[in-house]
Amino acid sequence: MIKACVFDVFGTLVDWRASIAREAESILLPLGVSLHWGEFADAWRQQYQPAMAEVSAGRIPFSKLDVLHRRNLDVILKDYGIDHIDEATRRHLNLAWHRLDAWPDVAPGLQALKHKYLLAPCSNGNISLMVDLARRNGLVWDAILGAEVAREYKPMPVVYLSAAAAFDLAPEETLMVAAHSSDLAAAAVAGLRTAFVARPDEKGPGLGEVTPSTRVDYSVRSILELAEII
Amino acid sequence: MIKACVFDVFGTLVDWRASIAREAESILLPLGVSLHWGEFADAWRQQYQPAMAEVSAGRIPFSKLDVLHRRNLDVILKDYGIDHIDEATRRHLNLAWHRLDAWPDVAPGLQALKHKYLLAPCSNGNISLMVDLARRNGLVWDAILGAEVAREYKPMPVVYLSAAAAFDLAPEETLMVAAHSSDLAAAAVAGLRTAFVARPDEKGPGLGEVTPSTRVDYSVRSILELAEII
Repeated sequence: MIKACVFDVFGTLVDWRASIAREAESILLPLGVSLHWGEFADAWRQQYQPAMAEVSAGRIPFSKLDVLHRRNLDVILKDYGIDHIDEATRRHLNLAWHRLDAWPDVAPGLQALKHKYLLAPCSNGNISLMVDLARRNGLVWDAILGAEVAREYKPMPVVYLSAAAAFDLAPEETLMVAAHSSDLAAAAVAGLRTAFVARPDEKGPGLGEVTPSTRVDYSVRSILELAEII
Repeated sequence: MIKACVFDVFGTLVDWRASIAREAESILLPLGVSLHWGEFADAWRQQYQPAMAEVSAGRIPFSKLDVLHRRNLDVILKDYGIDHIDEATRRHLNLAWHRLDAWPDVAPGLQALKHKYLLAPCSNGNISLMVDLARRNGLVWDAILGAEVAREYKPMPVVYLSAAAAFDLAPEETLMVAAHSSDLAAAAVAGLRTAFVARPDEKGPGLGEVTPSTRVDYSVRSILELAEII
């Protein structure tokens, strides 16, 4: 009996690649920088897992994803040879992750789910980032759960378990919703129920997962479809 | 420049005394228990500060307020000589704190504040308790902050500071709203701005604070009035 749905956010609820490409272009193009903005988004995102792995391995202390994003931004600006960007611009560009657009099914899908389930993000994004995405996209959360509350990053089991525990629920009463099989596999190991949402264009046209590569309880193509079937 | 308002909840936003009295009566009276229900609520609440002080002093590890409430309930049931209450009933009665009613100005007041400020509880109540009160009373939060996220209880400074930090704000950009001077004094020491809300009947008719006994930035009689003046 599922009582709460918790969600991966980057890719699952918001289109990080097109949004980051748009933000980077709007900030850097006026400064004379010209490059492939989608690839710039990919390059930034590619630094994401290794940075969190440093935290999970205990090599650096837990810090908000904003801090890791900023460290990663400095790395890729250097890689691209555009080191002349000033501090204020770097700070503004780093907060591009707070200005991502949701896929169109997400806001109405969460509204529909809210009638029957408690809802929270279970993301590696920090609380303020989740709050800004919610305000921007009209996402109705009961609480902001995930990495900053657990003080660890997914796929560490404590992140999924602490989301269920915050709602006073057993893991099996909690449904983890994500567009990434690796996230769902880790949630399942922690005892949560799982739902896969296909986001075929997440990493660029045709480059997202279409079907899960791990056993899941539900597989859908939108949050609205999820609201209809569970 | 205030960017977020964070709120004490018990007494400030919800009428714990009348609600606990009502819940206790509805659960215990059918079991043949008869007593002064308001005084029962007072007795339960009187165990609250000492239990949290045990945590703050490091004598017991941090645990959710639900756990402390339950320990306190067992104490007062024993004090009242009504030890025959079974486990399921104790558990249901303990969750009476999840079924408190908000003062009538609170839901519309938060709706008005939400247009200009980020909003969160900064309560000693746990996340699930805050979520249930929000659902019951239509409270619109951006995030659930406070003791469970900070893993300490107010008036420890880290609770106020972590609420501001979760929103990426400096303490002075954050307004702590409470009906208790002691809470506001602690928030001010941590660097937050403060607003006192008079709840003259919080502890029974005429037994709440009417004016603050500490210096505050604002003093109002309702959340709606706060929304008008800040």
